[in-house]
Amino acid sequence: MAGEFKRDMNYIDTRITADGRDGYPVEPGRYRLVVARACPWANRAVIVRRLLGLEPVLSMGIAGPTHDQRSWRFDLDPGGRDPVLGIERLQEAFLARFPDYDKGITVPAIVDIPTGQVVTNDFPQITLDFSTEWREHHRPGAPELYPEDLRAEIDEVDDLVFRVNNGVYKTGFAGSQDAHEKAFSELFEAMDLLAERLSGQRYLVGDTITEADVHLFPTLVRFDAVYHGHFKCNRHKLTEMPVLRDYTRDLFQTPGFGDTIHFPQIKEHYYVVHRNLNPSGIIPAGPDLSDLLQPHGRDRLGGRPFGNGTPPGPPPESERVPGLG
Amino acid sequence: MAGEFKRDMNYIDTRITADGRDGYPVEPGRYRLVVARACPWANRAVIVRRLLGLEPVLSMGIAGPTHDQRSWRFDLDPGGRDPVLGIERLQEAFLARFPDYDKGITVPAIVDIPTGQVVTNDFPQITLDFSTEWREHHRPGAPELYPEDLRAEIDEVDDLVFRVNNGVYKTGFAGSQDAHEKAFSELFEAMDLLAERLSGQRYLVGDTITEADVHLFPTLVRFDAVYHGHFKCNRHKLTEMPVLRDYTRDLFQTPGFGDTIHFPQIKEHYYVVHRNLNPSGIIPAGPDLSDLLQPHGRDRLGGRPFGNGTPPGPPPESERVPGLG
Repeated sequence: MAGEFKRDMNYIDTRITADGRDGYPVEPGRYRLVVARACPWANRAVIVRRLLGLEPVLSMGIAGPTHDQRSWRFDLDPGGRDPVLGIERLQEAFLARFPDYDKGITVPAIVDIPTGQVVTNDFPQITLDFSTEWREHHRPGAPELYPEDLRAEIDEVDDLVFRVNNGVYKTGFAGSQDAHEKAFSELFEAMDLLAERLSGQRYLVGDTITEADVHLFPTLVRFDAVYHGHFKCNRHKLTEMPVLRDYTRDLFQTPGFGDTIHFPQIKEHYYVVHRNLNPSGIIPAGPDLSDLLQPHGRDRLGGRPFGNGTPPGPPPESERVPGLG
Repeated sequence: MAGEFKRDMNYIDTRITADGRDGYPVEPGRYRLVVARACPWANRAVIVRRLLGLEPVLSMGIAGPTHDQRSWRFDLDPGGRDPVLGIERLQEAFLARFPDYDKGITVPAIVDIPTGQVVTNDFPQITLDFSTEWREHHRPGAPELYPEDLRAEIDEVDDLVFRVNNGVYKTGFAGSQDAHEKAFSELFEAMDLLAERLSGQRYLVGDTITEADVHLFPTLVRFDAVYHGHFKCNRHKLTEMPVLRDYTRDLFQTPGFGDTIHFPQIKEHYYVVHRNLNPSGIIPAGPDLSDLLQPHGRDRLGGRPFGNGTPPGPPPESERVPGLG
């Protein structure tokens, strides 16, 4: 359709595995996960790293919320350089591996610290490999986010979840009125189907948190702060959709989810970077986000958030995010 | 403050009066009220004309929702000309009176049909004169919108109402982050004060609809459709502010208010005209506005909407607006 937004899904698909078959074996301290707090795709990796307790074996570099055409930048760090990789721009790690690299410089990315080369930015694979390939290094009590007997169902519901993840971008970046209206309808249709599913069960698949919930949460938690206004996804606010609102409150209040969310960086990223949508770069002072701290009432649906496991402890001091107050 | 939006309040202040002291006596059929459905300032005049039943003596020309730098245009009319005035642009009526007119071409404006000259665009005075100077031509049962014993209180509360009317523009058109945040705080402070006032009484002043309610309604009814997103007035949606939401529902469902509201034209105006805020000109498909038709529950507060008068009948066929479905 004319004016339709298409996501480039062409990523570096090298994998870090237990057996090291791609040349990058799982190894404590060898790699650095690079993210931006703003990015919903990176948010998945940040959450899974927290839930599985991979912090001691896989350090994390945090790029700033705004970037230019070329790259995400480490402008939050002293001197504007990532303290472990010593680079100013994530692009440097991509070029270190592929000198002619001409595709998107995206987060999440995992960098091999000894060589400074990016290993992968293949976001859908990264979190699955955290669950399966890094198992030896999971914390005691780490949950099963991608259990074998539920994989088919997780993968199936993920089609619908992706229609929400990507649908907000299609709605906001549509280049024509028709493309906007089509994307808008498809987005809210998918949200309504997910709300229906979640009206009778606490989590998307089974009775515990899984990879499916990790995929949906980053989009829902950003919905009112950026997608509703900036991306014109404005049939309703999330606060007006009770099932999805309560589901999001529930996860936000679960260790490993809400403690990865940095709203000032999220808002700055979208409103400052997309000058084509917001020429002034002015960031709306709202919304009031205190709704996320209200009672969710979802425990009436049962569910065992971490299954036979336990919640993660608090994040390392250096990775704390500001509260909502 | 740097970047602050300032409204030009310099209008043509000639008045149409019962005694004709400015050269323009009240006279049935002589004048044409020119409005745009989109404009909240014009909306006041449209509502008061309906409430007082002035339709048979004062005809109404309706400019289209979009305009260029020079003027509002009659592009909704056959041939793009107002059928009574025979002009394509409202500017022609301003230039007919003042050949060197260089201030804003604004609605509402009242044009003297025989000469084609604009008489006034002084919106705060226009509605007051409808109530006081045109009294001889009010319909039977017309309400008292500006009763003598309440004028001081109406004028006093109007300061607060204007902070909302103008505050949404100041918030949206702020040229700096600081100016936005200051305007945003002042806007919601004023809204909170009005909500407090309206929590215990059905209308702003006295126990009936007055000029004060006519001033506040046009901004509130546009709030979620345009100001919340387009103007970044996003602390809460109106649907999340129960007192103001119910007050707006109540008025929307009162004859003479909701039947003046044309949401497609309102949305088109803001999102298409302000390319500096919305370069694509794409109009969000939302919001779902059906909330306005929900029960308001405000009758529990008592109040006599039309005092000793009666509601107006339906609008003339040619002035009907589309429903919310």
